[in-house]
Amino acid sequence: MSVSIKDIARLCGVSTATVSRTLSHPDRVSEDTRAQVMTVVATLGYNVNSAARSLRRQRSDSVLAIVPDLGNPFFSAILAGMEEALHAAGIDLLIRDSRQAGNSGEVMLNHLRQGRVDGLICLDGALPEATRRALAAPDVARRVVFCCEWLSGDDGALFPSVRSDNQTGARLAIDTLVGLGHRNIAFLAGPPSNVLSQERRIGTVAALAAHGLELSQTCGGGQDFGLQAGYEAAQWLVGLEPRPTAVLCVSDQMAMGLIAGLNDLGVSVPRDISVIGFDDIVTAAYFRPALTTVRQNRGEIGKRAAELLMIQVREGAEPPEVPAVVNVPVELIMRSTVGPAP
Amino acid sequence: MSVSIKDIARLCGVSTATVSRTLSHPDRVSEDTRAQVMTVVATLGYNVNSAARSLRRQRSDSVLAIVPDLGNPFFSAILAGMEEALHAAGIDLLIRDSRQAGNSGEVMLNHLRQGRVDGLICLDGALPEATRRALAAPDVARRVVFCCEWLSGDDGALFPSVRSDNQTGARLAIDTLVGLGHRNIAFLAGPPSNVLSQERRIGTVAALAAHGLELSQTCGGGQDFGLQAGYEAAQWLVGLEPRPTAVLCVSDQMAMGLIAGLNDLGVSVPRDISVIGFDDIVTAAYFRPALTTVRQNRGEIGKRAAELLMIQVREGAEPPEVPAVVNVPVELIMRSTVGPAP
Repeated sequence: MSVSIKDIARLCGVSTATVSRTLSHPDRVSEDTRAQVMTVVATLGYNVNSAARSLRRQRSDSVLAIVPDLGNPFFSAILAGMEEALHAAGIDLLIRDSRQAGNSGEVMLNHLRQGRVDGLICLDGALPEATRRALAAPDVARRVVFCCEWLSGDDGALFPSVRSDNQTGARLAIDTLVGLGHRNIAFLAGPPSNVLSQERRIGTVAALAAHGLELSQTCGGGQDFGLQAGYEAAQWLVGLEPRPTAVLCVSDQMAMGLIAGLNDLGVSVPRDISVIGFDDIVTAAYFRPALTTVRQNRGEIGKRAAELLMIQVREGAEPPEVPAVVNVPVELIMRSTVGPAP
Repeated sequence: MSVSIKDIARLCGVSTATVSRTLSHPDRVSEDTRAQVMTVVATLGYNVNSAARSLRRQRSDSVLAIVPDLGNPFFSAILAGMEEALHAAGIDLLIRDSRQAGNSGEVMLNHLRQGRVDGLICLDGALPEATRRALAAPDVARRVVFCCEWLSGDDGALFPSVRSDNQTGARLAIDTLVGLGHRNIAFLAGPPSNVLSQERRIGTVAALAAHGLELSQTCGGGQDFGLQAGYEAAQWLVGLEPRPTAVLCVSDQMAMGLIAGLNDLGVSVPRDISVIGFDDIVTAAYFRPALTTVRQNRGEIGKRAAELLMIQVREGAEPPEVPAVVNVPVELIMRSTVGPAP
């Protein structure tokens, strides 16, 4: 008699996934489930070991996350959210820093092709053209989800992605500043080619236009979204004529660096210049003055990306099941770096 | 004719490890090496695919890092250092958050026993007794290295570990404070049972004793090393009679939270109270006032832990090859939160 996992699942009143998990990773199900499944398995004479081996051959039960810079604390809460969602499904999270890995495109593809991971969550939108093409192959594409960043120009048709609602975030910040009388508002971007720099700038310009205003200035930012790039932008900002009375920054780290730089130049925040960040990293609330910022729900972003990938790689999943772009809501957190226009 | 990896290595003038890597992960060796090894392989008729498969069965080429809290940005640079060292050897880094993983002890052991990872780098010293015992089994113990934290009471005899030179760090801070006239110095600890809280407190007491002084007060700290725990300690500190003129904090996040809390209570740092942190996380330099702190070389800690593990799990490695405890030097970074005793 040939006994299938479906038979065991039906007899136990659990899903086939739970049976699979019980056989391959007994530590990952409750004691009750384990006892029940094992009893049925023993009764039916199902060969646990060979089943587990076979399952393991088909699925690696691991997912690779490609992070542009592991040294940036922004990613920690996203990875924690991912890890939590994946762990609940018995899947391991493998991480790799794309800036350190040399040819990260090759690494990603090799991992997928060799079956070392079941899928890929890419947090880096700046991939070489060859990698973009290779990832777009049908057998590969369905195992890939983007998170936070996405490939420039991809509206979700190429790869599903989980994004913060970046344009709304910019609008919330601009509406608040305009409401406080600011008319001369600058935008501090990260790397100009980065999709987040672009998208948040677009949101800023659109929100200003709705008030009949134009964006005063954009600083191209540095090589990254880091503190030092923000610090250096202070010099640029105070040199502008007329000097903006408010700045929306593309990241919290840049906002904090900018405020530190302004402080060192004798310019007071928010008395002379109002500053709003983007992210709400853990330090923002304890920075002094406490940083007003657009909060990205980082844990939720990671969780949703993991879930999206798990739906997508599921055997038999139809493409329409997968939403093209998941927008995670943002909110403006008012703290102490914004005041009325001087 | 049976051709072994040793034969290929000898003919190519490279190590057997390089041949293995070339066969299993051709993208991870230089083009020259790849071309050379593949030519010899083709000449000798070695079956690349079956060899690669066999190698993969023997080694997972991945390592699991157990992190107590992925949401804490302290770990990002350590993981980046690990990832870099492991990647150079063709090994993937798999991470897991021990606080989220439920029974992290079981997870660790299962990963090792099932051969899903070759080794384990544990950054969490607070393991249940059952896990400690299970990890100490000879076949398991040689695949485990501790990093940052270690098991309380283990002087390196049980598991090798990479640690910051915590006691020296505390001494550097105390010597500086005493040199500036401070006599009434408090210590802000993290969780009392944590080895880092204990070790840095021991260093603080010893350094004060060398100056003929006693530790004024220790605050037990909160559930973690975070900003909120530091913020809440401000109330405790200002209530002390006589009030300490300086505080050494067990972490930068606690120091920043403390300074924010003191600020909110109208106490000025460093005019009224000097504060020194421990870690030098990326934000410390841009916090205002910029945080004076004991820098842990986080990238180096991660790199050394990865290297230590790779030496240890190498086939045929003798126990004496593995140093018991690797101490990574620390340094005091003088910024703006320390001044003369008021």
